[in-house]
Order: sequence, then structure tokens, then C-alpha cells
Amino acid sequence: MRISELSRASGVPIPTIKFYLRERLLPPGERTAANQASYDAGHVRRLELIRVLVEVGGLGIGAVRGVLDAIGRSDASLHEVLAEAHRALRRADLSAPETLTATRAETDAWLEGRGWTLDPASPPRDELAATLLALRQLGWETGPEIFERYADAADALASAEVDHVAGIADREAAVRAMVIGTILFERALLALRRLAHEHHSRTSLNEAPDPSG
Amino acid sequence: MRISELSRASGVPIPTIKFYLRERLLPPGERTAANQASYDAGHVRRLELIRVLVEVGGLGIGAVRGVLDAIGRSDASLHEVLAEAHRALRRADLSAPETLTATRAETDAWLEGRGWTLDPASPPRDELAATLLALRQLGWETGPEIFERYADAADALASAEVDHVAGIADREAAVRAMVIGTILFERALLALRRLAHEHHSRTSLNEAPDPSG
Repeated sequence: MRISELSRASGVPIPTIKFYLRERLLPPGERTAANQASYDAGHVRRLELIRVLVEVGGLGIGAVRGVLDAIGRSDASLHEVLAEAHRALRRADLSAPETLTATRAETDAWLEGRGWTLDPASPPRDELAATLLALRQLGWETGPEIFERYADAADALASAEVDHVAGIADREAAVRAMVIGTILFERALLALRRLAHEHHSRTSLNEAPDPSG
Repeated sequence: MRISELSRASGVPIPTIKFYLRERLLPPGERTAANQASYDAGHVRRLELIRVLVEVGGLGIGAVRGVLDAIGRSDASLHEVLAEAHRALRRADLSAPETLTATRAETDAWLEGRGWTLDPASPPRDELAATLLALRQLGWETGPEIFERYADAADALASAEVDHVAGIADREAAVRAMVIGTILFERALLALRRLAHEHHSRTSLNEAPDPSG
């Protein structure tokens, strides 16, 4: 198909496609004339993936390249591709790493107590420690055990998600399912948590403050 | 305390504090001399809240103002403050609202089937519909029931969170717990989901592709 058809099929505007081609996020089409190239279903799928990474995941071009490179490494296991996607999705840290050291030791010990096997350098370890530190800076006097309930929920969801991906025979489809699933179901989970907040707070918290108070 | 002490106590640099004062996100201190004002513990707490909204929640100044205004409305119930915080936290939509209509009808019907009582205009409803639409555009042939597992997890977490907030007698403390909890435990939940992914994928997915494949 031509670039105009590729744009229609993927929902990505032509100038953006040309930018991705220049940045080599999208492989070139097959040259059919001096000034014309032909694209296929692989280009459509690649563009859809980039669109999710950019528009939903909020990734910059450098991070998108990191995820796509990991996907493209035919010697990488799905586990390694997932690790690369996590690195790319890492958010800006709330605190400088050195201020995190003591809190990291606490959250790391707590994670170890859960029996999870984790890389000592996994980026979400810092995220978790930074969250605990932020809670404490805001006056919450608590240890990592405050996350227990969230870890149980995350454990059940992740186990089902990994089982699903492990059941997909085609490698490209499995990689797509994993990266897309990480981003899109994350979005769904946050939307559902807020809806559930609304539902539960409607009954428990829907009273204006006591004017005599 | 002076502005330099306020800066030290809150971890927010003086120029940023002055900016918040000019933008009226922070109420003025008590004037003690022609060019000097005195700040109190309320200013420290307010700055810490702004810091979480900006640095962790990723909110712009306009959205921060929306949340702070809702918190400041003494006639608003906690439920209403939560709704305002959700509006402020809404992320950019993946799809234009008109393309969402058909999918929204499906996800709305599914949410109703769960028995949740929700405002018809709740922003996360669009988030959820946009996620389903994105999944389908990426070739996932599914209905809203794919979110069942996530809704169950969100329901259990939100119920416990709202119970916790409902048990806090002081209104200001309850509002802070709610807004901060929404943002910080969201961050913890995502970090834990990624760690759980890593743990589960290590065993199930940690094989390089079969070279004969």
C-alpha cells in the first residue's frame, strides 16, 4: 500500500509517518519508483504499537526506540523484552537516588519477604521506595507493609497476564500482547480504581461537613 | 517562620514558593515588616500537597488550582472533592469523544451490570472506553468483560481505601489522605504490578526463542 493508505489504515498522519521513517522507528517501505514506496501490514502493526507507546504510554522518541529495539532483538527472551519496556516506561523519580538508599533497603527487604524473585536493579524498586518516602514526608508514619494489599492485587493480576502471554505461540504476537497489555491494562486498572472510589465514596463520604463543627 | 525556613521545611525552593504565592496557590503569609512575612505549619502542609500533585501526579498549575479549590470549598463533601481531583487528574484522551460513543455504551452497560453507582459524566468512564477501543484497534477481539479481573481488584482496594478515609475525624486530614492516597498508592500499585510481572515472567517467559523456529 502507499503512504496515504498506510496513514488511513493506522490512523497516523502522513507527516508523522515520515518523521518515524526518518527516525528509523519505522523500517523503510519497498521502493517501487524513484519517489514512491510500498508498505505492508507489518508497517500498520508497527505504527499502531508506536501510537500506543506515545499516546497512551506517554513515551518520548528515545524510550520508544528502546522498546522497539528490545522487541526486534530476536535473541531476547520475552522476559528480557518486558524488562526493557519497564525501563522505558519508568517515570521521573520523585527523589534523588541517594536520598532513597535507606528506604530502598526497607522496601527491598519487604519485597524479598514476599518471595518474589527480582533483579536487584529493577526500576520499579525505586518507584516503590520513592512512594514510601513521599508518604512519610507527608506525615504518614508507616512501613512497607502498607503496600501489602496492593501487592496481593498486583500479584494475582500479573500471574494471570503472564499466563495469557505464555499461551501465545507466535513470538511477535506475544511481544505485542505483553507491551500493549502492560500499558493499556494499566490504564484500565487506574480508571477502574477511580470509578470504584467514586462508587464507594458516594455512600461513605457524601455528607457535607457539619456546619456546627 | 520566614520564607527561607519554609523552603527548608517543605523542600520547595524559594523561587518556586514565590511563584506559588503570585499564582495564589499558596495563601500569603502574615506581614511582619515592609518586606517580610511569616509562614506557619499550614503553609508547609499546603506546599507538600502541591509538590505531590505536581511532581508525582504530573498536574499543571491549572489542574493543581482545581484540586486546591475543591479542597478549600468548605461546603463540599469529601465525595465531591474526590470527583474534582479525578477531573484534574484526567489524562489526555486517546480518542476524540465522538469516536468513543459506541464503545462507551458497551462499557457503561458493563459498569452498570457490576452494580456500581456512578455519575454518568465521570471522566474515568471515557478512559475505560478509550482503552477498550485501543485494544480493538490493535486487533484484540474482546468486550468489556476482559476488564472483570481488574474491576474486582480495583473494587477491593477502593473499598478499603474509602473505609480508611471515612475513619479520619479531621476534615483537612481526611482530604489530604484522599488526594495523596489517590496519587501515591496509584504509583505504588503500578510499581508492584511491574515487579509482579517480572517475578512471574522470569519463570514462564525466560527462554530465548527456539533457533529452529
